[in-house]
Amino acid sequence: MTKYLVNLQPIGRRVEIEAGTDLLTAAQRAGVEIVASCGGLGICATCKVRILQGRVTPPTLTEEEELGQEAMAEGYRLACQTIPLEDVRIDIPRESLVAGQRVQVDGREGEFALDPAVRAIDLELTPPALDDLRADLTRVSETLALHGLPALSGGPKLLSRLALFLRANDWQARIAVRPGADGSALVSVLPKGARIAGLAMDIGSTKLAMFLVDLESGAILAQAGVMNPQISFGEDVVSRIAYANKGDAERIQLQTRLVETINQTLGEFCQQENICRDQIVDIVAVGNTAIHHLFTGLPVTPLGTAPYTPVQAGAMYFQAAEIGLEAAAGAWVYLPPNIAGYVGADHVSALVASRSYINTEHTSLLIDIGTNTEISLIYAGRVLSCSCASGPAFEGAHIRDGMRAAPGAIERVHLDGGRVRPLTIASQPPVGICGSGILNAVAEMLDATVINDRGVLNQKNERVRMANGKSEFLLVPADDTGHGRDIVVTRKDINEIQLAKGAIRTGLEILLKEAGIPADQIDDFIIAGAFGTHLDLKSALRVGLFPCQPLERFHQVGNAAGVGARQMLLSRAVRAEAERIVSGVEYVELTTYPRFYDVYVECMYFEPC
Amino acid sequence: MTKYLVNLQPIGRRVEIEAGTDLLTAAQRAGVEIVASCGGLGICATCKVRILQGRVTPPTLTEEEELGQEAMAEGYRLACQTIPLEDVRIDIPRESLVAGQRVQVDGREGEFALDPAVRAIDLELTPPALDDLRADLTRVSETLALHGLPALSGGPKLLSRLALFLRANDWQARIAVRPGADGSALVSVLPKGARIAGLAMDIGSTKLAMFLVDLESGAILAQAGVMNPQISFGEDVVSRIAYANKGDAERIQLQTRLVETINQTLGEFCQQENICRDQIVDIVAVGNTAIHHLFTGLPVTPLGTAPYTPVQAGAMYFQAAEIGLEAAAGAWVYLPPNIAGYVGADHVSALVASRSYINTEHTSLLIDIGTNTEISLIYAGRVLSCSCASGPAFEGAHIRDGMRAAPGAIERVHLDGGRVRPLTIASQPPVGICGSGILNAVAEMLDATVINDRGVLNQKNERVRMANGKSEFLLVPADDTGHGRDIVVTRKDINEIQLAKGAIRTGLEILLKEAGIPADQIDDFIIAGAFGTHLDLKSALRVGLFPCQPLERFHQVGNAAGVGARQMLLSRAVRAEAERIVSGVEYVELTTYPRFYDVYVECMYFEPC
Repeated sequence: MTKYLVNLQPIGRRVEIEAGTDLLTAAQRAGVEIVASCGGLGICATCKVRILQGRVTPPTLTEEEELGQEAMAEGYRLACQTIPLEDVRIDIPRESLVAGQRVQVDGREGEFALDPAVRAIDLELTPPALDDLRADLTRVSETLALHGLPALSGGPKLLSRLALFLRANDWQARIAVRPGADGSALVSVLPKGARIAGLAMDIGSTKLAMFLVDLESGAILAQAGVMNPQISFGEDVVSRIAYANKGDAERIQLQTRLVETINQTLGEFCQQENICRDQIVDIVAVGNTAIHHLFTGLPVTPLGTAPYTPVQAGAMYFQAAEIGLEAAAGAWVYLPPNIAGYVGADHVSALVASRSYINTEHTSLLIDIGTNTEISLIYAGRVLSCSCASGPAFEGAHIRDGMRAAPGAIERVHLDGGRVRPLTIASQPPVGICGSGILNAVAEMLDATVINDRGVLNQKNERVRMANGKSEFLLVPADDTGHGRDIVVTRKDINEIQLAKGAIRTGLEILLKEAGIPADQIDDFIIAGAFGTHLDLKSALRVGLFPCQPLERFHQVGNAAGVGARQMLLSRAVRAEAERIVSGVEYVELTTYPRFYDVYVECMYFEPC
Repeated sequence: MTKYLVNLQPIGRRVEIEAGTDLLTAAQRAGVEIVASCGGLGICATCKVRILQGRVTPPTLTEEEELGQEAMAEGYRLACQTIPLEDVRIDIPRESLVAGQRVQVDGREGEFALDPAVRAIDLELTPPALDDLRADLTRVSETLALHGLPALSGGPKLLSRLALFLRANDWQARIAVRPGADGSALVSVLPKGARIAGLAMDIGSTKLAMFLVDLESGAILAQAGVMNPQISFGEDVVSRIAYANKGDAERIQLQTRLVETINQTLGEFCQQENICRDQIVDIVAVGNTAIHHLFTGLPVTPLGTAPYTPVQAGAMYFQAAEIGLEAAAGAWVYLPPNIAGYVGADHVSALVASRSYINTEHTSLLIDIGTNTEISLIYAGRVLSCSCASGPAFEGAHIRDGMRAAPGAIERVHLDGGRVRPLTIASQPPVGICGSGILNAVAEMLDATVINDRGVLNQKNERVRMANGKSEFLLVPADDTGHGRDIVVTRKDINEIQLAKGAIRTGLEILLKEAGIPADQIDDFIIAGAFGTHLDLKSALRVGLFPCQPLERFHQVGNAAGVGARQMLLSRAVRAEAERIVSGVEYVELTTYPRFYDVYVECMYFEPC
């Protein structure tokens, strides 16, 4: 197969790719993370790069729309849409690098020293002699001492492996050790020069984001987003909890399926990066409380029964082998603490990734939008957190023509007088509307007075019609769609959006009330999560999802939970910070909050911004 | 079956026994450890007790000989020879309590606070409620905090077991935890009121001493001395190392057999004490370096090949399950450090048990006699240690009529003019001579000038004769033996004793030379180990095994390694002390010592004391 060389500037990294590979994938292979909020679908325009040298495929229509002629004339392209036709040299603008990396550059966010829990030590020992009768492992410990590490410890199997390896390899080896109070625990025995890597995971109810990270450079070696296989046992965690509660076998089945998927993806990473399982020496996993329990195998009965408490909220740290994860023999898994039943370690991880906002004099709101939306208000050394049952509307569910963000989904809508111009993912003929699309559509309908502030459709509008006694707005007529059926926005769809945005806004308002802080004193609104990254901020403000504040105060930070997980993999200090943050969090239970329903009803109106 | 009650004074403990059980066994069942250096054979007279009330079996001949009429008139008996015939009350004199206990009484030796590595905590929790949404394990951690312990940690399997147990048992349980820098590791989940116990083991090449100890009272619940099953793969460690070096399967076979025997004995302990495996929450094992490796499964090739170094000399601490030990799910095994290839953790354990001698201004010699004899000279804050290849003569091996200390073995000999009066174990007709018997015989022969200071037999003595051209001394004529064959002491036997005592004395002299300390400055000679306990001190001094010093400076302390192992089970401070001691030990390699052979030859002579 033909291969091309991609030279990434100004980082100076090179990567060989097979013909047909786009530049976004090429950069990921090289461990350079480019912002691609939409996941490479060509709709977010965040993966802008500049072609410095070499021929590439011509610009797509999406690029023409998103970049404009001027930028394209300067050589700018979207990395996800551009495929090299020969060896190329490209420039990655600073703003196209992901949060984690960008932040390290400008020092604003998440700067931390590389200090992973597991370290690699190179051994070059002298063999025993009559005048040097030290034990094999004493020799190893003396090398560790030179690195300021405590004496070697571990179980006899792994220590035996080390002793045999040293004697078979001229007393040279590379070992991975986890320094602690009881010594430097042996994690893996490797040949000289072997890389050590760690696995960071953000385990979502639907998707599993996995990152293979080089523990010595901090570079991302490989990453993947795969479906959480537990989805076949229930789309939401409530139904999975019900399934797990049928018995031990069912609970273990859910765990096993997830671990199998992780092992399989990890196997693909290893093959791709030409490394072996023994080189995977540390693992960090974050997820919501239910997923946390279903992943570790903890009983979920308490989570599914009133008063809905978790078995374990504290940080967990245990051998990877105990749950069947195929990593180095001595590898452990770290899970940061959960806050409460419905505010899990994934939110903690997002808090950690946002700590530069937190650790300032700023007052910040971290909003992680999903089926459950977790919100934290950080001010004056306090952190108030709550969980809102926002439902799946923003994921396209419970919407008549709703769908997940996939090719053919309407992502943006322009209402222009009587005309409707839909923009779809991958420029495919429209087949439905995804979460950010419906939010945008509702905002446009408000602006065009198709609906009023209570969400009632204006019957005078020519596209508003009745169907089965219920009013609806014709978004795309059948002839213009990919499946030959009308795509509409119903009164009920609008109501779903009202309920969802109302739930989130209620949580937000109650936190502000609880703290006695007016919205205009919030310096930073940090919007995390997949939907949060894709949403159109102006539309969100138009529908009143967030308080009406200047746009520049809002930061869409992408998968902050994944960034936090990677940082915890690379730094013990960040883990400690996560535990410190959680110990200070004050959980606010919304449903028992006085006047909760009054606030909720008020928040369901569409207020103009 | 008829049962009697034995009331032990002044301790005030009662125990029910089956008819036919001797008082020594009764005391052991009650957790009261009486000195029984000979292991209940009736030859050491150390298990003296006084019958206060109740009928018992009449005195044996052994008792008449060992105790004398006067003591017997006062009610004194040997516990191992005395069987109650009804309920009895007995008094245990202070000197009959074993070192470990006696010492705690008089404060002379080994006083330490009960501070085991694993602690039991009683949980009485309140269940979750709407106004109390703490996680299950947070509730547990808060109880731990009340005891000054860090938060609960552990693998999900055991944490799950705890959560399920609490919810099934009205939120009450007893847990065993091992507090450490990473939290209080969960060791076992137990019902309310359950005892927690630990296992201390002194694993010898031949015998395995096992003690089941109550971790909260420090009492010995059960003990046993069983054969090390590895003996069927080679009587000495050298041949076992050779066997293990045949391959992984053979090495693992040796380990498995030993672990099986331990598990079996542990099972008997559990049945006898009515406790379950989950209550065995901690394990300490000591043994020489080869046994240490064969027990843990570490490779022994380095130990069997020049320059004979161990794989691991440092302390080891790992999950009991890793080597198949059947204890609580979260139990770990602690092995104190070894000093060098031939000075193992058993000697370290003996040093620990003797630390009251060590931690004074005294100059002490600890001598642990076996096939390998380890000697430590402790003075002015220094510890010099060496290992002497003393061979198995003192265990009755390599001696023509030699045998192990078993019924019928000659234990003491009186040479009275032309008459020889042998005293045998269990007063059986003589069938051979054990280690302490041959030592005593040689000493008597020296006094009676049957041999000279070079070990040459006096041909003029009427019992000295030639057989196959070699001279020998007739100890017991065929008619007086149990097997109808003459029992003799040959010139070669005497030479074996010379080699053995010469090797030990050489090590001792070289340590003294190395330290520049004359023998008369040694305040305490601490003689440990089975043979060391049984030997007749006067005989030992007569043959020159030890320097000619006043008898009161010599202390026969029994199985000091076993005492040390128990103390390490009961006190983390004692473990730390063991590691501190070892870190300061200076190992003296005898074979490369200048003038080693000159000293050795000199030490083989019999010098009168």
